[in-house]
Amino acid sequence: MESFGRYCNLNIDKMEDFGRQLDEIGAFPMSLPPPSPHRIEIEHLVRRSIYQKLGRDLPRTAQAPNPLLVNISARHCHLTPAAVEALFGPGAKLTPMKWLYQKDQFAAKETVTLIGPRSRVISNLRILGPCRSLNQVELALTDSIALGFDVPIRFSGNVAGTPGCMLMGPNGFFEMNEGVIRAAPHVHMHPDDAAFSGVKAGDFMKLKVGGPCATTFDRLFVRVDPEFKLEVHIDTDEGNACALQPDTPVELLK
Amino acid sequence: MESFGRYCNLNIDKMEDFGRQLDEIGAFPMSLPPPSPHRIEIEHLVRRSIYQKLGRDLPRTAQAPNPLLVNISARHCHLTPAAVEALFGPGAKLTPMKWLYQKDQFAAKETVTLIGPRSRVISNLRILGPCRSLNQVELALTDSIALGFDVPIRFSGNVAGTPGCMLMGPNGFFEMNEGVIRAAPHVHMHPDDAAFSGVKAGDFMKLKVGGPCATTFDRLFVRVDPEFKLEVHIDTDEGNACALQPDTPVELLK
Repeated sequence: MESFGRYCNLNIDKMEDFGRQLDEIGAFPMSLPPPSPHRIEIEHLVRRSIYQKLGRDLPRTAQAPNPLLVNISARHCHLTPAAVEALFGPGAKLTPMKWLYQKDQFAAKETVTLIGPRSRVISNLRILGPCRSLNQVELALTDSIALGFDVPIRFSGNVAGTPGCMLMGPNGFFEMNEGVIRAAPHVHMHPDDAAFSGVKAGDFMKLKVGGPCATTFDRLFVRVDPEFKLEVHIDTDEGNACALQPDTPVELLK
Repeated sequence: MESFGRYCNLNIDKMEDFGRQLDEIGAFPMSLPPPSPHRIEIEHLVRRSIYQKLGRDLPRTAQAPNPLLVNISARHCHLTPAAVEALFGPGAKLTPMKWLYQKDQFAAKETVTLIGPRSRVISNLRILGPCRSLNQVELALTDSIALGFDVPIRFSGNVAGTPGCMLMGPNGFFEMNEGVIRAAPHVHMHPDDAAFSGVKAGDFMKLKVGGPCATTFDRLFVRVDPEFKLEVHIDTDEGNACALQPDTPVELLK
């Protein structure tokens, strides 16, 4: 049980760090309590603990330093502070509505209207916070076809030469000259996760999804950062193609 | 070159049969010429011919009795003659707008409006002909989420216990008590194709798709019929998830 305890404490430490950091920065209203450990993290601890109590060898998934979470990213945008002010008024800041799995990341209460090249629109495009140094809209291919965009597949932040769009908020318009992409499916990894899987940043892995629409995504881009928690991001086309549900079996393969 | 000639003639024979059949049945106006051989069929013949001329062994794809075509099925419906008359008026028949790859199958000029459970609608839902003995609406999961349906994954024709919907046409409404499905990805095979791949009706195969969004569909349902041409049907979520283009490499695996 010792390692179970250590693991638990580590998470509580992280949460305390997180809370302190928010207080110190004071960048946005504390409208939400700090995020609790995700169900999948607790399951991982319980699974390890049970195997150890039974004196049985841990299966490979339980040997991994962290549990694997696969999340579907619906269409959304990342904005600069200047874009937020143009859209929502001088001094406006994003308000956290829901904490995401990656540290400090949140879905904001604020949304914008995206106006595409044929004057077709997507209403209520969610903004993810905190603000970044780059404006980026992430659409699934189904969204981009509906809007009339020819949107390339890119890694986040790599927006040179991509199409732009017009955003509309309650305070006015903001024109993006570029930055509309289809985000390539990717996995966020802590260096411990990358070491366990034998991969490095920039590699590709496979994500095997089971269930009635079993699908393997053969080019999952690997991102590694000490701040990252192990999480795969796929878009709504990919998530709906494999009919991903909370209990769908998932596996990372090299 | 002998087998090339035979292969070609076989296709011409089929087209002549097809034309005759249409004349004899006279079930719908001959608004379109009979379908020409698909580009992929001609490429298959050329590839075989070139390998033979060069005296080289045929690669496995060229040894296959037929070329592999993967087509994306956008949302659509199949209707009974009674439903067509209710929607388009007494005596109304479907008019072919575009021939599909499978024999006698066509996209009709006629479309309907689908009204979902939350009064959300999909306009211009294409009808595929000819009429069937069963009404069935096939949606991608993205469509069904947008409409507010909880749509199960089913094989075509297996509609017991599925949700219904209301259809609207220029002559009136037609209520379906059941029949809204997400069609499971499947492959149509001639018995020669099934024999070549070592599978039988009801088995599952894998479809490996290459390119920048390389994806493997691990549960492709096998359908076999002497009338079938080798063709995989995936829906728009699946097609957009793997970013399928006309030149994307595809492979059937057992």
